[in-house]
Amino acid sequence: MTKIQVYDTTLRDGTQGEGIAFSLADKLKIVKLLDELGVAYIEAGIPASNPKDAELFEKIAKIELKNAKIAAFGSTHRIGVPVEEDSGVKALIEADTPVITIFGKAWDLHVKEVFNAELNENLDIISETIEYIKTFGKEVIFDAEHFFDGYKHNKEYALSVLNAAKGAGADIICLCDTNGATFPDEVSKIVAEVTDFVKDTKIAIHCHNDIGVAVSNTLMGVFSGATQVQGTMNGFGERCGNANLCTIIPNLQLKRGYDLVPPESLKKLRSISRHIYELANIVPDERKPYVGSMAFTHKGGMHIDAVLKNPKTFEHISPEYVGNERKLLMSEMSGRSMVYEIIKKIEPKTEKDSPIITDVLEEIKILEKNGYQFEGAEGSLELMVLKKLGYYKPQFALEQFKVIAAAPASSHYTATAMIKILVDDAAEVTAAEGEGPVNALDKALRKALYRFYPELKNSRLIDFKVRVLDGSNSGTAALTRVLMESTDGKTSWSTVGVSEDILEASWKALVDSIDYYLLHTKREQE
Amino acid sequence: MTKIQVYDTTLRDGTQGEGIAFSLADKLKIVKLLDELGVAYIEAGIPASNPKDAELFEKIAKIELKNAKIAAFGSTHRIGVPVEEDSGVKALIEADTPVITIFGKAWDLHVKEVFNAELNENLDIISETIEYIKTFGKEVIFDAEHFFDGYKHNKEYALSVLNAAKGAGADIICLCDTNGATFPDEVSKIVAEVTDFVKDTKIAIHCHNDIGVAVSNTLMGVFSGATQVQGTMNGFGERCGNANLCTIIPNLQLKRGYDLVPPESLKKLRSISRHIYELANIVPDERKPYVGSMAFTHKGGMHIDAVLKNPKTFEHISPEYVGNERKLLMSEMSGRSMVYEIIKKIEPKTEKDSPIITDVLEEIKILEKNGYQFEGAEGSLELMVLKKLGYYKPQFALEQFKVIAAAPASSHYTATAMIKILVDDAAEVTAAEGEGPVNALDKALRKALYRFYPELKNSRLIDFKVRVLDGSNSGTAALTRVLMESTDGKTSWSTVGVSEDILEASWKALVDSIDYYLLHTKREQE
Repeated sequence: MTKIQVYDTTLRDGTQGEGIAFSLADKLKIVKLLDELGVAYIEAGIPASNPKDAELFEKIAKIELKNAKIAAFGSTHRIGVPVEEDSGVKALIEADTPVITIFGKAWDLHVKEVFNAELNENLDIISETIEYIKTFGKEVIFDAEHFFDGYKHNKEYALSVLNAAKGAGADIICLCDTNGATFPDEVSKIVAEVTDFVKDTKIAIHCHNDIGVAVSNTLMGVFSGATQVQGTMNGFGERCGNANLCTIIPNLQLKRGYDLVPPESLKKLRSISRHIYELANIVPDERKPYVGSMAFTHKGGMHIDAVLKNPKTFEHISPEYVGNERKLLMSEMSGRSMVYEIIKKIEPKTEKDSPIITDVLEEIKILEKNGYQFEGAEGSLELMVLKKLGYYKPQFALEQFKVIAAAPASSHYTATAMIKILVDDAAEVTAAEGEGPVNALDKALRKALYRFYPELKNSRLIDFKVRVLDGSNSGTAALTRVLMESTDGKTSWSTVGVSEDILEASWKALVDSIDYYLLHTKREQE
Repeated sequence: MTKIQVYDTTLRDGTQGEGIAFSLADKLKIVKLLDELGVAYIEAGIPASNPKDAELFEKIAKIELKNAKIAAFGSTHRIGVPVEEDSGVKALIEADTPVITIFGKAWDLHVKEVFNAELNENLDIISETIEYIKTFGKEVIFDAEHFFDGYKHNKEYALSVLNAAKGAGADIICLCDTNGATFPDEVSKIVAEVTDFVKDTKIAIHCHNDIGVAVSNTLMGVFSGATQVQGTMNGFGERCGNANLCTIIPNLQLKRGYDLVPPESLKKLRSISRHIYELANIVPDERKPYVGSMAFTHKGGMHIDAVLKNPKTFEHISPEYVGNERKLLMSEMSGRSMVYEIIKKIEPKTEKDSPIITDVLEEIKILEKNGYQFEGAEGSLELMVLKKLGYYKPQFALEQFKVIAAAPASSHYTATAMIKILVDDAAEVTAAEGEGPVNALDKALRKALYRFYPELKNSRLIDFKVRVLDGSNSGTAALTRVLMESTDGKTSWSTVGVSEDILEASWKALVDSIDYYLLHTKREQE
């Protein structure tokens, strides 16, 4: 089996996409997810771009990775600045990663019109930058920006750029279709010519989707000799996106016999894809190959009959290979083992085929139909399992609340919440002001509970995400999912609530967050 | 220029997609839109499937078409029923269309396991059905279902199916990749062999997107000799969808010199694509090539500079060719040249060094520090520029609002909003109930404004995104950014609001949305 390296650039090129931004904590989570998937390289960011990314590289260095090497991304040194004094190059070295990816211009139009440089000057800059970085013992990947356009416009020059990179010691040369408008038949021909030209240097392929063929171009690149594929999870990226690794990996591995990731991790593909959608706060595209909820959905009665007779009739692979399922939102594979893991924590003696697992899975299916999602809401999932096991006891009951918001506001605060709760038989009535209705209600609830549970003062919300589901129809009354992340300073847990009313959805997630914390502190004390 | 026929099956195969359904009126509108786009064939439906489709064909017969021929779709006659007595075939004839498309099985697995027929029996059924329909003087297109899987499994049989169709008089033979999992290199090779095999009969190609390569496969089919492309608008269709005509048409026509539709109608591509999304009630995928709002969007400051110097640097075509436009995303990184582009739209005479540009940039910096983001909120950005230019006049003023939310709720609705607004000197006081505080306030504001601006009834929110901004540790009181997208059915615009109070942030985005719409409708009337 030919080995193909997967080079993920979700955290760098992916974030060029409109509306895609990750916090530092999100980025660290994504690094772990990608490593779990088994990619060979993770391009984590541009150390020179801002202090946040410098901190990122420090934090990443502390993560123990099983499969991936971390790459830092940057450009060749600036014109007129000696390479050893270039701040961008300095930042790359200081990022302290085993791999550095350098992009340089391969299209003469760009060299002249954007870079304002002579063609030879550009070659020198590429050589100098790579040679300098190699003295630090780094693995260097050279991204030939706009390679295909350059090749079509001035083949000789484009090839001389590759030669310069190779001569300077680049370990891998990546051919980029930066504008994403090269056709598959062209990629096929050009990559074959290039692999022949560069001979013993590894070739990578990096495609964009502006004419809808990024996946195909990547495949054609591999069939013509490229041994590394660059892309992003879910195809995130500028304009129409980058080549989608969630499609490329199973295409090459399941159907053409290449070796990209450990076979067992392919089964996590759908769940990792969704987790990253969730962190990006982007609604998953359910029509996406392999990982979308509609990818193995059958509508026509005739098709359903045929699939039940023999799945091969209308299914190109067994959906389980990529952790997907026919018509179901949550994958049976990842769901079952996930649920089993949680149950085992509570009831260590549970067997793998215990009926309680099926029970919980059934409940999850129903809740998911109603807009819930438990990937990224493990706190709520655990509470649900506790309820099924009969171990759940609510820590308080709501008698009623009323929230008033007004503009202009009568005080600094824009909203007031009144609340009455019961703990066992004791009632507590209180009120609090806040920044808007959700905050006022949050504060009032905590205030009411402190009397009974003073330990609650150690917990607080650190993240609060709102996702409007199915936004097509009803605007501000659309089904809304709220994800909350809470911490007590040591660990963190996340909970979920769903409702057409954003306040009600927040309330549900909030109650789960508090319940989860109180149950856990009690368990620890026992 | 080689002529390539476009065969659209949005109304038939497209409606197999999950969540896609059209009313009779919608279907008639789509027929007109497709004819305006200039497709050669419109597959309107299956006359045998239900009475609605029979009525559809009656109504379509009355439409005067400039470019397209209507096709009715159906299967070969049933086993054991003489062709002239088969109700499906009868319905096809009665639909009274110039073209009839018949699908038959080309994969031996399907013939045996789904059809429960002998291989020869299937060939006879195909011949008899086509021969019979030809006696009515119809143009017949034969869809060889699962052709590529059949060819790979039993080449001889798959080719004998084509031979049967050709021998019976089929005018066009269509090779279908029904399960959507054939690779572009395979399509290339197989279509070349088939065109050589069938010789003088026209070959069509019909692809599905299960491995993300439907567009590429269609292109490869054409490069290997197919002269008809079958697909759907926006790639609608079962599972991962059909080959997307909105990508295929410009790919072949603008970049490879084929002749598919009248050049002037290509400029309507984006607007027709969006109109069909609207009729399907599906949120447009803004990342789609050519027609998506992000297809020509630039975010990185470096990219923006380059595009403004020479659009070719990061744009593969001029967006106007397909009726789209360039979008430059606002962010701290971006330079003054970008702000200039926006101001020029409003004040064409503005100079490049006008102080107004610096003013706007300063304001953007301040707002971005406070959590605003104008990327994806062009509506609010334009309003901000209008304010700076002194062209902005508020369309109404808020006197006050009060929102009450309660649990348990006293009615189906969980919140009530009271509002008082002023338009010039006239006041309006009203109230509305809603699903939560944001929805109630949204409804109350619109209700209050309808008296003054009845045109507002044409606009509605289609998306509502809430993002809790990073770097804050204050949970439900964290700075919150609300992005809203609104539509009047023709265009869409997005607006933004920021506040620690989610209700206030929503209110700001809502006011901008309404202001933007009212100002634009006024400007159009002038």
